[in-house]
Amino acid sequence: MRSTVGVVGWHRTLRKTLHSLSAPSSPAFLGPNLPDVWVPGDHTSPPTHFPESLQWANGHSNAVILEGKSIAKQIKVKVADEIRRMKSGIGKFPRLAVVLLPQKCAESQLLDVVSSFNDETDVHGIIVQLPLPQHLDEEKVINVLSPEKDVDGFHPLNMGNLAIRGRKPFFIPCARRGCVELLLRHGVEIKGKRAVIIGRSKIAGLPTSLLLQRHHATVSMLHSYTKNPEQITSEADIVVADVGIPNIVRGNWLKKGAVVIDMGTNQVKDPRDHSFHVSGDVCFEEAVKVASAITPVPGGVGPVTISMLLSNILDSAKRSFEMI
Amino acid sequence: MRSTVGVVGWHRTLRKTLHSLSAPSSPAFLGPNLPDVWVPGDHTSPPTHFPESLQWANGHSNAVILEGKSIAKQIKVKVADEIRRMKSGIGKFPRLAVVLLPQKCAESQLLDVVSSFNDETDVHGIIVQLPLPQHLDEEKVINVLSPEKDVDGFHPLNMGNLAIRGRKPFFIPCARRGCVELLLRHGVEIKGKRAVIIGRSKIAGLPTSLLLQRHHATVSMLHSYTKNPEQITSEADIVVADVGIPNIVRGNWLKKGAVVIDMGTNQVKDPRDHSFHVSGDVCFEEAVKVASAITPVPGGVGPVTISMLLSNILDSAKRSFEMI
Repeated sequence: MRSTVGVVGWHRTLRKTLHSLSAPSSPAFLGPNLPDVWVPGDHTSPPTHFPESLQWANGHSNAVILEGKSIAKQIKVKVADEIRRMKSGIGKFPRLAVVLLPQKCAESQLLDVVSSFNDETDVHGIIVQLPLPQHLDEEKVINVLSPEKDVDGFHPLNMGNLAIRGRKPFFIPCARRGCVELLLRHGVEIKGKRAVIIGRSKIAGLPTSLLLQRHHATVSMLHSYTKNPEQITSEADIVVADVGIPNIVRGNWLKKGAVVIDMGTNQVKDPRDHSFHVSGDVCFEEAVKVASAITPVPGGVGPVTISMLLSNILDSAKRSFEMI
Repeated sequence: MRSTVGVVGWHRTLRKTLHSLSAPSSPAFLGPNLPDVWVPGDHTSPPTHFPESLQWANGHSNAVILEGKSIAKQIKVKVADEIRRMKSGIGKFPRLAVVLLPQKCAESQLLDVVSSFNDETDVHGIIVQLPLPQHLDEEKVINVLSPEKDVDGFHPLNMGNLAIRGRKPFFIPCARRGCVELLLRHGVEIKGKRAVIIGRSKIAGLPTSLLLQRHHATVSMLHSYTKNPEQITSEADIVVADVGIPNIVRGNWLKKGAVVIDMGTNQVKDPRDHSFHVSGDVCFEEAVKVASAITPVPGGVGPVTISMLLSNILDSAKRSFEMI
């Protein structure tokens, strides 16, 4: 069974790309921990319709492209630098265990392997390849995973600590960190903004909504039972799409000047030559004329997500070596 | 230190009030676990503005009062019956440990007491009196509490499992269960409805939003950084208020026919005779003219919340005795 498992020293791959990344799950990243101070009595004035959002519009008909590759590269360079300093300082480096599975893998075997990686002090992150073969219980496997090595951020303890204000999860799911990182690095203000998340999967919509709430956005979660997604979306300053259906979010769903984060990665077949290309959940050609900023697919959230995984592994190693 | 701790056999008090309660955290209570099936292409039609919500309006100018006392009594009778049957069947009953604290309690002492209750197999629920004295770390204490005995439902593992669709937390915070129980028992449809939660505390707004999402409502979370709470609230079919400010939610915040759940319990001083009365977060006199249904304060969510705690303790005992 151990033969089906790869333990990878990420420092080797990272050495190729090569400088201090702030702790990824630092309070700043999780959002400012401000108290809720309600101001009674002043809530009956007419709605203001977010005049601030107009500052976001860039005056052109086309939106700013929230490009992810250069941000991902910056993050990787910082991670690599931290690892170099870690190695020269204490002679150690981060290690990730990736559990790949044969289709006939027995559940007890898998649980044993995960448990053994939990106990190995020189393994700082564990990823179990999902989805699992159908006969295996994903919940059971993830529950066995040590929350301190759950670099994917899927363990319910990490999800719960992401949900509860003031708490600090060990890890935040990489794709959601990627989404918020893109907003922060492009200087998009989140506090007080109205955010709509379209899709509520545990790896996508759910953690993104929790993270944006930590940053004091007013978040609405839309899903397949939402009767008027286009109407609610049209009220949002920040739109996050992760549905899994190409081009479902049209230009007329969006408020002028909205910031659009497209997390979709859909394989779309070209009927002419049967080739495939990757399409997002947002109809880019339409949205780019309405939005003030939008992520491309590919090259938007994707690359940042991958760099966030490296950052999560580094963070885990730093905790293990008591460097944070 | 153990002298500061009371272990209460709830069966004694319940015997006074005295049928089978469904498992409180059953899938039915958590909401139907339906798949998200998005229908692309049909989202550009004009918004329908929830015509179904009109079914809720009762044709009068005043709303149905969602009274909680009788529901609470029904739940208690069922809990008591279950306990009676448990006792006659296996000679055992549920036990709750309540940890009360002297102001000078040392953290290590408190952690030891909680740990010792974790280990006692005949204790099925543990409640630590909150808020803690200022020198104690609430997060640390709650993290030590066994999630399987966390009848308050505040442990991050329980919160995470509430957040993740398809998972089943050991316990759901009592007040939130009370809120949803009230809706379910009064036959209010939640699926596909637009719900607004005003307030986002970990004991109130947060778990309520997670639970309503499990029931497939489209949920928006409002808080003190929300710029136009009255506008967003006016779009909601279900409004849940838990702000802690008397009468902050006015009649003109509400859509005609909305269902209003008021979780506020504010002590308000009468300037004439300096007496106190309890007021909700919703201006009842105004709201009752607009809503189709509304909870009173007191006598609405409160009594149901208490009965939910009894139900959580019973549920824990049943798990312990392998009766569920």
